[in-house]
Amino acid sequence: PTEEIPDPMCHACVMDEVKRRMLSRRDALKGGLRGVAAAGAAATVGGAALGAVAPRPARAESHTDDGSRAGDESGSSPVDATHELHERFPTFFGEQQFFMERKFGFAEDGFNLFELRVNEHTGTHVDAPLHFSADGDSVAEIPVESLVCPLVVVDIRDKAAENADAQLTPDDLKAWMSVNGEIPDGACVAMLSGWGELVDTERFRNVRGEGMHFPGFHPEAAQMLLDDTNAAGIAVDTLSLDHGPSADFATHYAWLPAGRWGIECIANLERLPVSGATLVVGAPKHRGGSGGPARVIALV
Amino acid sequence: PTEEIPDPMCHACVMDEVKRRMLSRRDALKGGLRGVAAAGAAATVGGAALGAVAPRPARAESHTDDGSRAGDESGSSPVDATHELHERFPTFFGEQQFFMERKFGFAEDGFNLFELRVNEHTGTHVDAPLHFSADGDSVAEIPVESLVCPLVVVDIRDKAAENADAQLTPDDLKAWMSVNGEIPDGACVAMLSGWGELVDTERFRNVRGEGMHFPGFHPEAAQMLLDDTNAAGIAVDTLSLDHGPSADFATHYAWLPAGRWGIECIANLERLPVSGATLVVGAPKHRGGSGGPARVIALV
Repeated sequence: PTEEIPDPMCHACVMDEVKRRMLSRRDALKGGLRGVAAAGAAATVGGAALGAVAPRPARAESHTDDGSRAGDESGSSPVDATHELHERFPTFFGEQQFFMERKFGFAEDGFNLFELRVNEHTGTHVDAPLHFSADGDSVAEIPVESLVCPLVVVDIRDKAAENADAQLTPDDLKAWMSVNGEIPDGACVAMLSGWGELVDTERFRNVRGEGMHFPGFHPEAAQMLLDDTNAAGIAVDTLSLDHGPSADFATHYAWLPAGRWGIECIANLERLPVSGATLVVGAPKHRGGSGGPARVIALV
Repeated sequence: PTEEIPDPMCHACVMDEVKRRMLSRRDALKGGLRGVAAAGAAATVGGAALGAVAPRPARAESHTDDGSRAGDESGSSPVDATHELHERFPTFFGEQQFFMERKFGFAEDGFNLFELRVNEHTGTHVDAPLHFSADGDSVAEIPVESLVCPLVVVDIRDKAAENADAQLTPDDLKAWMSVNGEIPDGACVAMLSGWGELVDTERFRNVRGEGMHFPGFHPEAAQMLLDDTNAAGIAVDTLSLDHGPSADFATHYAWLPAGRWGIECIANLERLPVSGATLVVGAPKHRGGSGGPARVIALV
């Protein structure tokens, strides 16, 4: 609502101030601002990498002598379920879908800033119900309570290693349940196919002959989750909820219009327990969006 | 690495398949795909909006009869600390910084998809160390452990109501500590100025006379956190870590080059306890980025 207001803090003025400040700091500090910046960057944050996952109080954390986090013995730690996004990240359509344009640079302007251009369905990202429906929830409308959820990991790596077109089926869900019990209400049910570790290789899209070959959810598994559980989301470590050869997006059409969400290109499932972790889905929150790159973090 | 591979699943082929599928489903379901989609969208997710925040096991949740989450008595629930992003979201520079372009529409194509264009420093977003340093950590390099952190809320609403240029000072930090104890290692220290509730009004940027007027962190408070604590981040419910009249970004230059991160335009701090919540900072993870729109969720 404020875009039309004439703004005396124009780009040029701001940049002039930044430069002036840089120079005065450089003089004051004798080492120059870049020296300060480099020193700051070189300094590790020390004991800063600590997460108290329990609601309260902050739990006692174990530390190593140098202040870094002491691994598993603290009993609770985050695992990043997000791939790094970059301009050559593989895409379903095969074309580049993420672009960065530098607008300001530290050497010239005193700070760094990029403009990003990105197809919503790029990198580790969320599919909102609206992606495959006329008027389902946009990514901004997914209830935040739904984005903090029990994680169910269904490991189909054995059959995916033998058949790149493998699908997670109702039998795979039943096998998980026979060991781990009911699928929790609100769960995100994730397919671990092993594809996450292939993201930097051509096997991730795995184009052969007429199309792509990677694992996905069988539509009947999605339907079983709709019929028999209150799962909120499904996730795949591949480029699509539907397996590569799908010609009809049947899983997308079964799942998303029913008011559920999906995650594609989830990372590091192999580092997570099959049951018991909590997933925090850092979905973007742009009005009317059909999905978008997300920071997905598992609390173990 | 795969972008150059000729892809037989071209846009047109995929869209043809989607349309074919739509038609066949329309026939099969007699109600038409849009009917299915609308029904799916209308159906609530029922018991899906459940988050078990504790590491394990999933905690028993209280439910209402209709399956929705039963508010506070479950003892743990997420609060969304993220503003909805849209094309008229207020910006520091005063110009539009977020753009959505529709690439596919459900009526024509069978699915919805947008391309987004966004300045990294727009909406509720993260400032990475690289934003104000030559070679600090990019947003993708911030350790994930640092993004799950104890939240400290410093309430300066009283003085901000009297003076839009108010700053969070060392005295405010001391006052918080006198009541709540030490600032936890790895904390995100957030300024609650009351500005978050003004985001849809012109008071958010609050241009008067020569510039903008909104609260921020005093550089001395940032320095105190660097000297006396292991805080990992600072957050403000305004457009900048520095208060509106700042001509020199002194807080940015004190804090970010020291390997710390910031959050600007954080939302809903007034709904959070001053101590005891855990913040999950869903920072974007694009290689080399100086920051970007983030989904920030507090676990209470």
